[in-house]
Amino acid sequence: MQEIIEPKILKGFRDSLPGPEIKRKKMFADLEKAFSSFGFVPIDTPVLEYTEVLLGKGGGETDKQVYSFTDNGGRSVAMRYDLTVPFARFVAANKNSLYFPFKRYHISKVWRGENTQRGRYREFYQCDFDIVGSDSASADLEILLLMKKSFETMGINNFKIHLSSRGIFNRFLEIHGMLDKSADILRTVDKLAKIGPDAVKAILTETAGSSGALILDFIKMEAGFEKTLQKLIRLCGGESSEAERLSRIYSALKENSCEEYFVLDPSITRGLDYYTGLVFETFIDGKESIGSVCSGGRYNNLASLYTKEELPGVGASIGVDRLLAALDEAESGKRAEAQCECIVFNMDDDLLGLLHKTAEEARKTGISCEVFPESKKLNRQFAHAEKKNIPAGIIIGTEEKDSNTITVKDLIERKNYEKLDIKSGMEQVLSIVNKWRINGRT
Amino acid sequence: MQEIIEPKILKGFRDSLPGPEIKRKKMFADLEKAFSSFGFVPIDTPVLEYTEVLLGKGGGETDKQVYSFTDNGGRSVAMRYDLTVPFARFVAANKNSLYFPFKRYHISKVWRGENTQRGRYREFYQCDFDIVGSDSASADLEILLLMKKSFETMGINNFKIHLSSRGIFNRFLEIHGMLDKSADILRTVDKLAKIGPDAVKAILTETAGSSGALILDFIKMEAGFEKTLQKLIRLCGGESSEAERLSRIYSALKENSCEEYFVLDPSITRGLDYYTGLVFETFIDGKESIGSVCSGGRYNNLASLYTKEELPGVGASIGVDRLLAALDEAESGKRAEAQCECIVFNMDDDLLGLLHKTAEEARKTGISCEVFPESKKLNRQFAHAEKKNIPAGIIIGTEEKDSNTITVKDLIERKNYEKLDIKSGMEQVLSIVNKWRINGRT
Repeated sequence: MQEIIEPKILKGFRDSLPGPEIKRKKMFADLEKAFSSFGFVPIDTPVLEYTEVLLGKGGGETDKQVYSFTDNGGRSVAMRYDLTVPFARFVAANKNSLYFPFKRYHISKVWRGENTQRGRYREFYQCDFDIVGSDSASADLEILLLMKKSFETMGINNFKIHLSSRGIFNRFLEIHGMLDKSADILRTVDKLAKIGPDAVKAILTETAGSSGALILDFIKMEAGFEKTLQKLIRLCGGESSEAERLSRIYSALKENSCEEYFVLDPSITRGLDYYTGLVFETFIDGKESIGSVCSGGRYNNLASLYTKEELPGVGASIGVDRLLAALDEAESGKRAEAQCECIVFNMDDDLLGLLHKTAEEARKTGISCEVFPESKKLNRQFAHAEKKNIPAGIIIGTEEKDSNTITVKDLIERKNYEKLDIKSGMEQVLSIVNKWRINGRT
Repeated sequence: MQEIIEPKILKGFRDSLPGPEIKRKKMFADLEKAFSSFGFVPIDTPVLEYTEVLLGKGGGETDKQVYSFTDNGGRSVAMRYDLTVPFARFVAANKNSLYFPFKRYHISKVWRGENTQRGRYREFYQCDFDIVGSDSASADLEILLLMKKSFETMGINNFKIHLSSRGIFNRFLEIHGMLDKSADILRTVDKLAKIGPDAVKAILTETAGSSGALILDFIKMEAGFEKTLQKLIRLCGGESSEAERLSRIYSALKENSCEEYFVLDPSITRGLDYYTGLVFETFIDGKESIGSVCSGGRYNNLASLYTKEELPGVGASIGVDRLLAALDEAESGKRAEAQCECIVFNMDDDLLGLLHKTAEEARKTGISCEVFPESKKLNRQFAHAEKKNIPAGIIIGTEEKDSNTITVKDLIERKNYEKLDIKSGMEQVLSIVNKWRINGRT
């Protein structure tokens, strides 16, 4: 007899069981619906790429986390660690086949050999959407409106999108002679939510001396979008194209009756040097502690590593794993999803054809339906249906067969509707399933 | 100035541009709809696993094609090369969280370092669905009915599912004293479609001597399912449980009014030792040369590598890449899919809020709609819309703004409907889009 291999999986990796996988697929389908409704199109790129193409010629902190190896042809290859770098490579490689401004979304897995002790996974999803090839305020606005639509499509209505402008921040740093320290300052300000204002102030005083207090004043929110914007304009020495753009975006948000979802928050900087204009983060009300669930901003050159053509753009990334975990928590204690909506029980293997024909009749009404494959004891079949949260059952015994009827079972209320003709029977099944769908997962 | 990196991709790998990616997503959504309607649930497994877990302790032909390497933690890891082995590992690892009979589907990428000279890709999709934990004829039948449903859901109605029974074949080999040569014989018969009956006969005569002719007689189709089955029963020395199961399945197919899609074809053997009962392959009428587009069968032990528990099952695998290529070919010359259904042209950046608000009005009617982000010359905007096959356009200039109207443009017929109020305007847009949807891609 052969030796059994332990079916273990790698640290930092997970199997996805049917319950969570159904939820994930539902969320991705909702997001794709939102993206498509705005004319965004999907793309995909290879999981494996040349290491040099993904990582550039340099090294750095990221590189150590990348799964990289030599393939059988002697090429140094790496698994993608985000969707931004492959997108830049994709646009440079395919620019003659694309129409600019190009609006794409990409939802897929990425891999990083992160320290799993911090609760991180080594295989996770990213969900990015970008508009590339336009430097317009309209593109900025569209990304913001699509973020709002995405959350609504997922059934999330209690969120705030905090936005700011890296352009204005840079202008502020410039007129106060701190532009050379901008990288350090931005990184420090970015930590505000994590380490609090006092710690930020201490670091800023060390970095920027007496200007530290000025920075703290700059990043504070005032009462409302317009008041905060007025303060930024004042601290930057007057009007600017960046401030005017923010003002136009806010007017347009008001015209679209959704300004209450947007907060001008100058402490949003998004650490990275990559961003040049609008920057934003999104927080679920009451769940600010899990961090931003959708972040991004405007950059002035997507694909500079791969092409001399300048491609300005704006984009956002939804933290789908973080959102799924948050939604899971909110739903704990509620009834689990049905893995199927109706089951045809099996009392007699000789009725094989009839059982499957009846299941297909049920499917024609728009519900999912399965046949229990073996004529086991009915109690075992009922237990199976219960474990899978199936609300409706159909029983066909000899009597039903001879009278051309079915018996319908409400598995939630434990109530039988005996010997209905097929049409009435299917109506009864549909009514049970609809009641279950409407009452939802309570 | 930094050096430009060539945005090249690895041999055997592909980018997926929006057009093909939209088609692929549509096909997968159709398939998932079919699977769910039968109560099949999705799962997912890690792309990376322990090499030993994926490949077992042995070596073999497959191993050379597997992307395998040592990770930063010194573990030997491998990228999955199919969805069957990870499924077996998954079931063994999670058996206490699953409900048997367990019906799952899995559509995902796999990787093999195949010889690209044969036109093979090194990254491709597999699409598997299985029922595990039941040895019943009902499970066999359900897989066959779901195959039919899957093809119909994809809009394919001209196909034949060729099926046979490995159990009957083994019985035939046994009574003619050829069971010890079964692996060789099955592999030879499996090549019938590729190399033709004469070559098969020559090899069989070498392998099985005078019995070669008998085998050729066995694998020949007679006129119809029942006649072929009668011949198999005769050549196997009489009735058997395997023949009885085939007969019951055929009766049930007739009861479900779909027997014309199924052909009893004893030359189907599916080479692999893995299968023990029902085996099948699927061919598109007139496209038999591309090979089987959905194959599989019954096996008596899914996870023997990982658990001592016996898990009989039956499953099928759809060749999605092959099908996508075939559908592409059938559609060549037809109009491409619209990447968006309606576009709001931009004549004035100052109307930012109004343009996006109007786009959202259009989306509320159930269509996709985008705003051109910059007030470029209208001709450039029209050209952009044409490239993306967008059928309907909306123009809002100062006059429209002042009169609270929109001008609607039929971009296919090149016809304008000027200054309609919003309600009539949206009705006009919807009528253009519906006409486009109905006329389809002609």
